Amino acid sequence: MIKMRALVKEKPEPGFVLKEVQMSENLEPDEVLVKIKNVSICGTDLHIYRWDEWAQKKIKTPQIDGHEFVGEVADIGSQVSMVKKGDTVVSETHIPCKHCIQCRTGRMHVCKNLEILGVDRDGVFAEYVKVPEIVLWKIDKSIPIDFASVMEPFGNAIHTSLVTELTGKNVLITGAGPIGAMAIAIAKHAGAAKVIVSEPKEYRIELAKKMGADLIINPQTDSVIDKVLKNTDGNGVDVLLEMSGNEKAFRDGLEVVTNGGEVSLLGVFSGNLSFDINGLFTFKGLTLHGITGRKMFETWNIATNLLKNKIIDLSPVVTHKFKLEDWQKGFEIMNKGESGKVILQVE
Amino acid sequence: MIKMRALVKEKPEPGFVLKEVQMSENLEPDEVLVKIKNVSICGTDLHIYRWDEWAQKKIKTPQIDGHEFVGEVADIGSQVSMVKKGDTVVSETHIPCKHCIQCRTGRMHVCKNLEILGVDRDGVFAEYVKVPEIVLWKIDKSIPIDFASVMEPFGNAIHTSLVTELTGKNVLITGAGPIGAMAIAIAKHAGAAKVIVSEPKEYRIELAKKMGADLIINPQTDSVIDKVLKNTDGNGVDVLLEMSGNEKAFRDGLEVVTNGGEVSLLGVFSGNLSFDINGLFTFKGLTLHGITGRKMFETWNIATNLLKNKIIDLSPVVTHKFKLEDWQKGFEIMNKGESGKVILQVE
Amino acid sequence: MIKMRALVKEKPEPGFVLKEVQMSENLEPDEVLVKIKNVSICGTDLHIYRWDEWAQKKIKTPQIDGHEFVGEVADIGSQVSMVKKGDTVVSETHIPCKHCIQCRTGRMHVCKNLEILGVDRDGVFAEYVKVPEIVLWKIDKSIPIDFASVMEPFGNAIHTSLVTELTGKNVLITGAGPIGAMAIAIAKHAGAAKVIVSEPKEYRIELAKKMGADLIINPQTDSVIDKVLKNTDGNGVDVLLEMSGNEKAFRDGLEVVTNGGEVSLLGVFSGNLSFDINGLFTFKGLTLHGITGRKMFETWNIATNLLKNKIIDLSPVVTHKFKLEDWQKGFEIMNKGESGKVILQVE
Amino acid sequence: MIKMRALVKEKPEPGFVLKEVQMSENLEPDEVLVKIKNVSICGTDLHIYRWDEWAQKKIKTPQIDGHEFVGEVADIGSQVSMVKKGDTVVSETHIPCKHCIQCRTGRMHVCKNLEILGVDRDGVFAEYVKVPEIVLWKIDKSIPIDFASVMEPFGNAIHTSLVTELTGKNVLITGAGPIGAMAIAIAKHAGAAKVIVSEPKEYRIELAKKMGADLIINPQTDSVIDKVLKNTDGNGVDVLLEMSGNEKAFRDGLEVVTNGGEVSLLGVFSGNLSFDINGLFTFKGLTLHGITGRKMFETWNIATNLLKNKIIDLSPVVTHKFKLEDWQKGFEIMNKGESGKVILQVE
Repeated sequence: MIKMRALVKEKPEPGFVLKEVQMSENLEPDEVLVKIKNVSICGTDLHIYRWDEWAQKKIKTPQIDGHEFVGEVADIGSQVSMVKKGDTVVSETHIPCKHCIQCRTGRMHVCKNLEILGVDRDGVFAEYVKVPEIVLWKIDKSIPIDFASVMEPFGNAIHTSLVTELTGKNVLITGAGPIGAMAIAIAKHAGAAKVIVSEPKEYRIELAKKMGADLIINPQTDSVIDKVLKNTDGNGVDVLLEMSGNEKAFRDGLEVVTNGGEVSLLGVFSGNLSFDINGLFTFKGLTLHGITGRKMFETWNIATNLLKNKIIDLSPVVTHKFKLEDWQKGFEIMNKGESGKVILQVE
Repeated sequence: MIKMRALVKEKPEPGFVLKEVQMSENLEPDEVLVKIKNVSICGTDLHIYRWDEWAQKKIKTPQIDGHEFVGEVADIGSQVSMVKKGDTVVSETHIPCKHCIQCRTGRMHVCKNLEILGVDRDGVFAEYVKVPEIVLWKIDKSIPIDFASVMEPFGNAIHTSLVTELTGKNVLITGAGPIGAMAIAIAKHAGAAKVIVSEPKEYRIELAKKMGADLIINPQTDSVIDKVLKNTDGNGVDVLLEMSGNEKAFRDGLEVVTNGGEVSLLGVFSGNLSFDINGLFTFKGLTLHGITGRKMFETWNIATNLLKNKIIDLSPVVTHKFKLEDWQKGFEIMNKGESGKVILQVE
Repeated sequence: MIKMRALVKEKPEPGFVLKEVQMSENLEPDEVLVKIKNVSICGTDLHIYRWDEWAQKKIKTPQIDGHEFVGEVADIGSQVSMVKKGDTVVSETHIPCKHCIQCRTGRMHVCKNLEILGVDRDGVFAEYVKVPEIVLWKIDKSIPIDFASVMEPFGNAIHTSLVTELTGKNVLITGAGPIGAMAIAIAKHAGAAKVIVSEPKEYRIELAKKMGADLIINPQTDSVIDKVLKNTDGNGVDVLLEMSGNEKAFRDGLEVVTNGGEVSLLGVFSGNLSFDINGLFTFKGLTLHGITGRKMFETWNIATNLLKNKIIDLSPVVTHKFKLEDWQKGFEIMNKGESGKVILQVE
Repeated sequence: MIKMRALVKEKPEPGFVLKEVQMSENLEPDEVLVKIKNVSICGTDLHIYRWDEWAQKKIKTPQIDGHEFVGEVADIGSQVSMVKKGDTVVSETHIPCKHCIQCRTGRMHVCKNLEILGVDRDGVFAEYVKVPEIVLWKIDKSIPIDFASVMEPFGNAIHTSLVTELTGKNVLITGAGPIGAMAIAIAKHAGAAKVIVSEPKEYRIELAKKMGADLIINPQTDSVIDKVLKNTDGNGVDVLLEMSGNEKAFRDGLEVVTNGGEVSLLGVFSGNLSFDINGLFTFKGLTLHGITGRKMFETWNIATNLLKNKIIDLSPVVTHKFKLEDWQKGFEIMNKGESGKVILQVE
């Protein structure tokens, strides 16, 4: 039995417990045991920490939380061939079934039977995790470990941003949380003509500046519509990347996408969304891309190339790092919205 | 002065008046005078006829109604070079400005300054109309005149249907009005594996059958979701063509689009649309295409090729034909929803 | 040990030997034992039969030949989960490595380490074959067994044809061998406006007619260029599907593709190809798609849907069927070029 | 009559004559008179200067040479509405017919009846030129006049580079002449992971460095194939931009494009091209895009956005500037291959 420390949701109530747990050493033939180096905290983990309505419906206790991580292969099942002991690996957090029509046609990221690490099964806020080899992605050791740790949300930003061509285009990003902030850098480095960001929180406005935004609009003090039109010769933007999950941000965003433009939607709304789809979407001939997860593994390949070749620097977005035992500090800072990505160092 | 009969909305009230009107013979250098042969009645014309809220806001009286037509070039302005006297022509009803960024980048159908025939300016329920040459499309005389007359809505159906590949795919079409009915034939002739239609009206169910639907579901007596899943091995459809403007139809349609699928939206909803965009769209990784007008003139070229080569037969969908003086009969039949396309013969 | 009859290339010389061979019953954890029902003869098999230059370089003896087949799962390895005993299966003949960047990004058909059944390892002209589960595709028992048997080349035709949209387009197919003939039916059922075929052999001209070609040009008696232009209002075709491997056919084909058109290339040329790439390709703004194999498993999914729903009828192209012991008759008929697909019945 | 200085090919022989010529002041209704500020010298002009075989076949004397320019609208025809007096304009050099199927379907850059400025009709090495309004593109006065002057070849570089997504991809550019050099900057600013260049000439190697190439290979001293593979973990590049017109460069380039990769071809070869299309292209599942001209006016819009927002700096590539009367110096420097773009200042 492997004995290890892990951050566990023991009972159906707020908080976690850091405790020693046991895990069998046995591996399925296609399974890999990963020794975890770093994990990072996602908004999803915060929902589970707070034990909100969504978490209460979704999570079964006891369960180890967490899904974003980087680690080293510690052991492999008898049939594993994609990675070997000692490899540094990051991981898809969406575990595909491999059998549904989506999986068999190269679209595992929309698998009909997805299982999510730390949500549908034990996660990675622990010293070890077992995952099927299909989700692992070996990375170059030249990628800084703190960037590797956030490659999963970085992949979300890439997947959202690259759904359409950005070079020479005007782009609006609604929401500059950690993923929105990463998308700013991606859009800039993909050659966007102008990257405009709408974001009300002061902390995130600063983050957006550091990531290279050309113009940041605070929707609480300024009209997003007016300012975007003014800064695009009245044409509006070619592309909207919606990353806020805020209804008004989305509607204002649609309003200023130019006719024939593209919208990429990662933001999750609370409850139903209501909007004038005729006037804001259909009559304008827009296209809307629903984004979930990351393409396996096109997105990871691009992420790797961007980091390995130092095209994109994620330093400004990785704002805090704590030891695993100080996990509570990390969750508190996240809770206040006064952070980019928060890393917990496990090893 | 040209004296001609025309169907005129004289005052801001329901109905039209068929009367003699005058039109100057002068043509702008880029203008073309077309002698109209056939016109057909669109749902938009019905709104204007009934003088509903939309019409009251949109239409200025007096104005000649109508926008779908086929005719013959009777005279051309001094700079016209795309058509010549005697050519049989059909026409875009969306008149583009030619100057905005959309127009200059090959996307006139989403022109920011569109003017619509019979809505923003005098239309075609008349013996003659003047239009700029840019909207005219010369057709082969082998295309039956009654099919030519409905090439504009046929173009809507083509534009909506061909936004994604259909060959070998399962397709759901919500709504079998005239454009939905034409889309059925297009999907079948584009090699769709199975074309499923949801439609409550008996008349349109019959029309859908004639156009080749593989399965027709009456949402008033059957569950669209259950029947679609049952007929697609539980996978749902690859493509949804929404042509009903009905909220429940759209939501049920989204529900049965398989993960990673495509949705093409032509239907116009009354008021705001409210739906669970997270669960029905984003998490499924769908793509939504807002459809307006027809691509100028890719869509018209495809329409011409499909009709000229007799790939698609529009006979079942052209259900009624009246002389212009019997226009009221046409509008009454349309009003009851007991028709496909209704043609008024002008010449 | 499994004892079975198999068609074996015993020595580096023309011909095969039908003999009893032995195969171990052991299966790798991911391997599947398939009891073969039908196989079909490919042009590649003919190269091996004749023992031409290509075969001499490529094939190691002794080896069982053949790669196109349909069968039933007879046994599965310990880790197999995609198929189960009794399933009717067809199979990719390109065995991907699963590890290269292509395989890991959803493009197994261009795997860098492909192994081909019956070329790089023992094939399927036998009563049983062992393959990794990743290449198997379960099919509906409603698909006629003789169509299932040729789904691999049918997949080539689909992959080549659907690389661009065909609905309403004019298409030229150069070469009406079995795959070209199948492409004719695909293009027609994908809504092509006009399907023109160039083919010199009388037998294949007849086959092309049966598959629905709108116009067949014999390049030995007619000018392909003149006839295509004449039948397309001087515009040429929108799409060229090159399936002949004949240099002149390809050059003439390029000549009549309209500016901005698309070319899909499956044909294999003998030796280097020489052509005026500036004038025939670059200045015309064409796009050329090199086609190899079938997309795993998008192509197979489309093939299944087209056959299951009886959209395409392959009867005219499956022209001969022999018992395995009469294999020589099949190869002789193929050798003369007087056949469509030739099936050998194993079971 | 307008009297003006112009660089004229007077007789069918090498060289030009700078002389005073006359041009009628009359404008067609859709014509625009442009007062030229800067012109730049293209490789095509060099062919005409040298009076090589191509020029002898193509050019009729007497004719004013030149096609790349920036100017100011001096007068407009009666129907012109896209530009007005005083506008700063650049121009397409490919004058489309507006009537062919390509022009009417948004693809004027592959017009079947193209007329090229300075090749098929009088060009722009003069104080004034008359062109139809359709080819003009108004630019922001904030764009430096020397960059505006080379927006036509910059457009070639953009059109070639953006035919596929580059963000996070490895790219090989064969040939670092002025357009290749501009493509280096575009690829880098579009987020390419690594931009590798093959170029033998010392002058151009220096230029490539200044434009941001990550690795430059001299094919006369090094193996392109070996070095590319070594610098891409053995995978080769995802994208090849061929800009050399050199057969060996193209073949070596194809060799190192990874399976499933994309090739964009702008280079013009002398005579037929001969290569192993089976092994280097088809079996690898590559796609080849033939590039001609610039998309009207998507490419110009992107070019404008990239320059106006200072995303790309063209300074290193604009290496020389002479007064019109010193035109011979410019041509001599171009002739030696010791330059980037050479500008002639007219105004």
